Amino acid sequence: MVTYVFEKNKGEPLYRQLYEFLRNDIISGVLAGGTKLPSKRAFADHLGVSKVTVEGAYSLLISEGYVYSLAKKGYFVEDSVDIKPHAAGKAHASVKEEESKKYAVDLSSNTVPPGQFPFSVWSKLMRNVCLDYRDELLLPMPYNGAENLRESIAEFLFEQRGMNVLPSQIIIGSGSEYFYSVIVRMLGNDLIYAVEDPCYRRIALSYAQNGVERVPVPIDKGGIITEKLKELNPDVLHISPSHNFPTGTVTGPRRRKEILNAFFGANGKYIIEDDFDSELRFNGKPIPTLYSSDPESRVIYMNTFSKTLAPSIRISYMVVPSSLAERCRSVVSAGGCPVSSFEQYTLAGFISKGYFERHLNRNRKYYKCLRDSLISAYKDNPISKLSEIEESDAGLHFFIKLYTDMDDEKVKTGLENAGIKVSFLSDYVACPSKETQHRLLVNYSGLTVDGFLTAADKICDIISSH
Amino acid sequence: MVTYVFEKNKGEPLYRQLYEFLRNDIISGVLAGGTKLPSKRAFADHLGVSKVTVEGAYSLLISEGYVYSLAKKGYFVEDSVDIKPHAAGKAHASVKEEESKKYAVDLSSNTVPPGQFPFSVWSKLMRNVCLDYRDELLLPMPYNGAENLRESIAEFLFEQRGMNVLPSQIIIGSGSEYFYSVIVRMLGNDLIYAVEDPCYRRIALSYAQNGVERVPVPIDKGGIITEKLKELNPDVLHISPSHNFPTGTVTGPRRRKEILNAFFGANGKYIIEDDFDSELRFNGKPIPTLYSSDPESRVIYMNTFSKTLAPSIRISYMVVPSSLAERCRSVVSAGGCPVSSFEQYTLAGFISKGYFERHLNRNRKYYKCLRDSLISAYKDNPISKLSEIEESDAGLHFFIKLYTDMDDEKVKTGLENAGIKVSFLSDYVACPSKETQHRLLVNYSGLTVDGFLTAADKICDIISSH
Repeated sequence: MVTYVFEKNKGEPLYRQLYEFLRNDIISGVLAGGTKLPSKRAFADHLGVSKVTVEGAYSLLISEGYVYSLAKKGYFVEDSVDIKPHAAGKAHASVKEEESKKYAVDLSSNTVPPGQFPFSVWSKLMRNVCLDYRDELLLPMPYNGAENLRESIAEFLFEQRGMNVLPSQIIIGSGSEYFYSVIVRMLGNDLIYAVEDPCYRRIALSYAQNGVERVPVPIDKGGIITEKLKELNPDVLHISPSHNFPTGTVTGPRRRKEILNAFFGANGKYIIEDDFDSELRFNGKPIPTLYSSDPESRVIYMNTFSKTLAPSIRISYMVVPSSLAERCRSVVSAGGCPVSSFEQYTLAGFISKGYFERHLNRNRKYYKCLRDSLISAYKDNPISKLSEIEESDAGLHFFIKLYTDMDDEKVKTGLENAGIKVSFLSDYVACPSKETQHRLLVNYSGLTVDGFLTAADKICDIISSH
Repeated sequence: MVTYVFEKNKGEPLYRQLYEFLRNDIISGVLAGGTKLPSKRAFADHLGVSKVTVEGAYSLLISEGYVYSLAKKGYFVEDSVDIKPHAAGKAHASVKEEESKKYAVDLSSNTVPPGQFPFSVWSKLMRNVCLDYRDELLLPMPYNGAENLRESIAEFLFEQRGMNVLPSQIIIGSGSEYFYSVIVRMLGNDLIYAVEDPCYRRIALSYAQNGVERVPVPIDKGGIITEKLKELNPDVLHISPSHNFPTGTVTGPRRRKEILNAFFGANGKYIIEDDFDSELRFNGKPIPTLYSSDPESRVIYMNTFSKTLAPSIRISYMVVPSSLAERCRSVVSAGGCPVSSFEQYTLAGFISKGYFERHLNRNRKYYKCLRDSLISAYKDNPISKLSEIEESDAGLHFFIKLYTDMDDEKVKTGLENAGIKVSFLSDYVACPSKETQHRLLVNYSGLTVDGFLTAADKICDIISSH
C-alpha cells in the first residue's frame, strides 16, 4: 500500500494533500492505469487519517476523471492517464516578439505628445468614477454602452455637429474597425461596398477581411465623383465627407446632395459616414453631416475618440438610423459591449463636464502653432526649392509635393535607410495616376521642428542625387 | 450688395465671421444657387474690412463647396445648396431606450457584489499608471496588446495553470466574443465547428453570427462523448474541459487523451480550449489544460477577466500555437488591439503585484461561504422536500432538480410573473432529453439568502399547485 507523509501545519486540509499525492503519482505513472486503490477504511488506517479524508480525496479524483469506482469492487486508476505538460520552449521558439524597427524620425503616422493628453483630469475623473459608481460599474454593460456616455455624446453631437440624435440611437464600440465588422454583419456580406479612393488603409482592409466585395470610387477636388458612383452602383458607400483621408478633401454641399440622391428611393442602400478627425479642423466650423441632411434615414454615422484623445483609448461610436435599430441590436447584443465600464463612465464625465471641448480647442491651437512653425522651417530650408507644400485645412498632416520623377518607393527606401519613415499619397490609392505621385505625407502631430528638418535635409539629398 | 454687421470684440477673426454669415445665408436660401457674389475688392470696401478678410472667407467657402469661382468671371453660390438638417425627432421617435425589466430576484445570471471588487487597489493602480506611463499610454498599442500585460499573464499561466507560454503567443482582446469572431476569421468559415451540448449560449450564438456550420456534441458525466465526436468529425472543437457550462462537468484525463487523439494527424484541425471560470474552483487545483497536454500544438487556449473581475471589464486573452501565429497576426493586426492601454497597464500591475491571486483567493472563500449558507437555507426550507440540489464543484452556480413533471417554460413563466428571473438547464441544451429537464439553475454570486428564500417559496407554490 502506498504511503504518503502529510504536512500537518501546511494549512492545506489533509484530504487535499492526499488528493495531490495521488494525482501526482497517477500523472507521473507511479500508479499505473488499472491499479486498484486501497479501500477507504484500509487506506485511512494505513495513513493514520480519518475515513472522511480518504473519501474527500477519492471523490475529487473521481470528479476529475483520474479514478473510477466499480460497485462492490472498489477504486481504480483510469487508463491512459499519461498526460504530461510538454516542453513548451521547443515548439514555440520560432515565434519571436515582433521587432518594431525604431526610426529617428517618423512622418508616416501621428502620435500624441504626452503634453497634449489631459492626464491629471483623466486620472481624477477615473478616481471619482471608482468612488461614485461602485454598483453600476460592476453590472454587465448594456449591449449599446453606458447610458450616461450615450447621453453625453448625443449632447456633444447636437452642440458641435448640429445633429439631433437620441441616446438610444448611439452604440458604443472599441474602435472604428469594430464597427466595420458590425456593419458588414448588419447589412450583409453579399453587397457591394464602395470606398473613397484614396482612403484610410484600414477601411479597405477591414472590408476585405470581412469578406465583402468593395470598389474604389475616385475623388476629385470636390469629393467623390458622383457619375462614377452611379456607374458602379454600389449597395453601400463608405465616405468621410467632412475630410477625406489623406487628401483632406471636403465633399461640398452639391456633391452631398447628388450622393444622397443617388441613394434615394433604392431599398437596402446605405451610406456610412465616417467622420473621424472632423473635430480638428482649423478653419471654419465642421460642415453639417450627411446624417443630418438625409431625410430618408439611410446614413449610419460613426466617429471615434482614438483620434481626438489617444490611439490607445479604444472608444468609438455609431449612430444608427431607426430603420436599422433592430438589426443592429441583434448583431451587437450577441457579443455585448466591448468597452470597459470604467472608461465609459470616465469619458462620459470628460465630455459632460466640458473637458472634451476644452481639450479640442487647446489641441487645435497647439497643432496649428506646430504646423505653422513646421511650415516656416520648411520655407527656410533648401527643400522649399525642390518641392511645394500642399496644405489641407483639416487634420494633422500636409503634403510635400516633390519636384522629381524619382519613384515614390525609391525615395521611401532611401529615407528608411537613413532612419526616416515616410508614406506617400500613392500608398493610399487603389487606382494610381500621375497626380497621385510624388506627394509625401507629413503626419506632424508628434513631430519636432528639429526632426522635421532632419527629414527635409535627407529628402533634398536623395532627390538631388537622382 | 449684402451687408453684415461684424462683432469686433467677439474674439473670432473677421474672415470667419464673414464666412459664417455667408454660409448661413447660403444654407438658408437667402443667397440662392447661381447668385454672383461681390468681387473681393468691392465687398471689402462695402463692408469696411480688408480684402484679405473677404479672400479668407471665400476660400473657406470654396474649400467646403458652398461657392465656386470661374476664371475672370468671379464667385458664385453653388446650386442645390439647400441641405438643411431634418427634424430628427420624428424619424427616430420609434426607437425607444430598451427597457430592461427589473426583477426582484434574478437567479439567471451572475453579478459581482460591489464588496467583491477591489476598488481601492484598482483606483490606486490606475492613478499610478497615469503617472508612470505617460509616454507609453499614448502610443498606438501593438496589435497583440501591451507587452507588460502579456508578460504578467504568461507568468500567471505558468504559476496557476502550469502552462509554459511565451508572452508573444498571447493576444489581448475585449471579451470572449471578440475572440470567437477572430477564430472564425483565422481558421475559416467553411469548416464544421463542434460545441459541447449543453454550452454557454453566447458560444453557439457567436458561431452562428459568424456564419459557420456548428454541430452540438453531447456530454455525459465524463465530458464530451468521444464516439460521437469521431462520428461527427468536425474540423474545430470548442470545449471547456475544466468546467463545462452549465453542468460543471470536468473532462477527465482519459477523455482528454481520446479527444486529442481524435484530432491528431489530421491537418487543419484545431481545438479551442475555453477556460473561463477555471480559477473559481473550490476544491482541488484546476486540472492541467488541454493546451499543455497537446504535443501537436493544435490547441488554442482562451480565457477572460470578465468572469473573475467584473463583466464590465472587457479584457480577455488567447494563447495561439506557433503554427497559427502568422494567421492570427494578419487577422488581428488589421483591426488593432481593441482594449485601452490604460486598463491593460492597470491589469498588468494588478496581476504582477500579486493582487489578482489574492483577489481570487478571497473570492473563492467568499463565494464558498455564500454557497454554503444558501444550501443550508435551502435545507431548512420546504423546497428541500420537493427537489434536490445537484452541486458541482466549480463555478458560481448549482442546480435545483425539481420533483415535478411541470414544463420548464411553465415554471419559468410563473416565476417571472412573480418578479423572479430564472433559467433552466434546458435553456442551454441543443438536443433535449429527459435528463435535461426540471433542472433550475441558481447563479448565486450576487444573491442574498433572503432573495434566494423568496424564490424558493415561490417555486414551492408553483410546483405544489400543479
